[in-house]
Amino acid sequence: MKCKICKGEVYITIKYPKMALCKEHFIEYFEKRVKKTIKKYEMIKPEDKVLIAISGGKDGAVVTYVLKKLGYNVECLHINLGIGEFSKKSLECVKKQTSYIGVRCHIVDLKELTGKGIPEVKSRKPKCSICGTAKRYIVSKFACDNGFNVIVTGHNLDDEASFILNNVMNWSTGYLARQGPILPQKGKLPKKVKPLYELTEEEISSYAEVVGLEVFSEKCPFAKKAITLEYKEMLNKIEETRPGTKYRFVIGYLKNRHLFEKEIEDIPLMECKICGMPSSGEVCSFCRTWELKEEIDLKVKG
Amino acid sequence: MKCKICKGEVYITIKYPKMALCKEHFIEYFEKRVKKTIKKYEMIKPEDKVLIAISGGKDGAVVTYVLKKLGYNVECLHINLGIGEFSKKSLECVKKQTSYIGVRCHIVDLKELTGKGIPEVKSRKPKCSICGTAKRYIVSKFACDNGFNVIVTGHNLDDEASFILNNVMNWSTGYLARQGPILPQKGKLPKKVKPLYELTEEEISSYAEVVGLEVFSEKCPFAKKAITLEYKEMLNKIEETRPGTKYRFVIGYLKNRHLFEKEIEDIPLMECKICGMPSSGEVCSFCRTWELKEEIDLKVKG
Ligand SMILES: [Zn+2]
Ligand SMILES: [Zn+2]
Ligand SMILES: [Zn+2]
Ligand SMILES: [Zn+2]
Repeated sequence: MKCKICKGEVYITIKYPKMALCKEHFIEYFEKRVKKTIKKYEMIKPEDKVLIAISGGKDGAVVTYVLKKLGYNVECLHINLGIGEFSKKSLECVKKQTSYIGVRCHIVDLKELTGKGIPEVKSRKPKCSICGTAKRYIVSKFACDNGFNVIVTGHNLDDEASFILNNVMNWSTGYLARQGPILPQKGKLPKKVKPLYELTEEEISSYAEVVGLEVFSEKCPFAKKAITLEYKEMLNKIEETRPGTKYRFVIGYLKNRHLFEKEIEDIPLMECKICGMPSSGEVCSFCRTWELKEEIDLKVKG
Repeated sequence: MKCKICKGEVYITIKYPKMALCKEHFIEYFEKRVKKTIKKYEMIKPEDKVLIAISGGKDGAVVTYVLKKLGYNVECLHINLGIGEFSKKSLECVKKQTSYIGVRCHIVDLKELTGKGIPEVKSRKPKCSICGTAKRYIVSKFACDNGFNVIVTGHNLDDEASFILNNVMNWSTGYLARQGPILPQKGKLPKKVKPLYELTEEEISSYAEVVGLEVFSEKCPFAKKAITLEYKEMLNKIEETRPGTKYRFVIGYLKNRHLFEKEIEDIPLMECKICGMPSSGEVCSFCRTWELKEEIDLKVKG
């Protein structure tokens, strides 16, 4: 097979839409898809101040690389979660990536900041759930404290399809009502967007490779084999015989999301009395879990 | 391990709810589950005249065996589809099953009746779709013509879970609005019920074996590997590590079905001008596909 466009040497065969592409035309294809996704869902305006959360993994690195290349005003935030060697390697990789891309990278050290990294926090909730809360909170607070009005995450088509499938299997209609490529700005909370929403993990890995991005792919030592990983495998198996299944499933979900929206009540958000961030209770779940007495200050000095 | 109830020799280990049972107590458990399902969804009343569609497979045979044992007024209907050896073996097995159970069995020969079996029918639709139409039509017409007010089918938990999953994957909200353990009577069409709705294929196969029912398990030569079979395998894989997944998925669906109901309009049914059965057009899809000029008569003589 030859590249569909230039008949040159094939670098990748994309399954849906089916086509073989050389390196150059795969890069072009990939970036066009990101551009199209941003436009289609009205994710980012040229004047936006964009914060990208990165962990060293392929998704954050790739979305940073592409947004920078497309000329957006982006900076990165990496949270050092304090999980031993894992966090050290993750940080090292983030530093290589951001210097390779030439983008400013802020680093928040959870343990320095609060006295407790993920391992030290005491809670009855699973570690992965606490960690998720911490990451979401710090990214939002950092964006608020430093005037970012858009938060970008690296979620891809496989993430979204498996997340939706898991929520359908559990009939978690609340989650099904709220999931999507953009989460609009709400009070203090900046808009959140997912520019890789329509791209698969395979495409993202191939893109990282072809543009020379080093990626950190170790699993967190706390991570249990998540059910969403099983769903990813299942969906990829169906995708083999029925290319486009994941895409159609996710796009079909977006078309039908209104069915679930009818079910949710909009809980009015209060302000956390410690930190002032939106909260469903008197104290937000981050300040509560980390037993904070005062707001953490994430303003960048100088 | 020993039988949970009598400490006797284990015949089967049920995965959800997890328990080991001897033959005797498995039979008791299985029949109680069927009874409970019939009661829970108000499927059959003692005075009902019940028609069961059977093909020789385990599901129809088992549901017939249990309903007969529970004292319901049941008769069977087998449709000879005229698919060569497959249909011959299927018919032979049905005869053995119904004589073993001691239940009356009516046989409708599609080719004798209309001049065309499944292989001879011309249509652009896939054979499996035509065959489904023919079976549903003949069972309904037979019930109407002979005063049956309830139609029983052998659909099980695995059928239902994979059917729902397939419709979720395609976001076929119309199907999702209508699926369930009972389909209420509508005009001429008798009520349709699925007494094995909450039992798994594995349980049904084990029950068939333990009560000595011979079953026909050959696949129809026209059958393509259906996507629902892939979903069945996937669901069984998840079930291994997370017992109860299929059950919770189906029950959760029933609790949330109203979300999809809002979407459908109730198309008023007309009467087919050939046969008088409910139809969405002037001529019903059976009479149209079989190019019938007059109603087929399914009244049992004598
Ligand atoms: Zn090319
Ligand atoms: Zn707070
Ligand atoms: Zn026993
Ligand atoms: Zn008709």
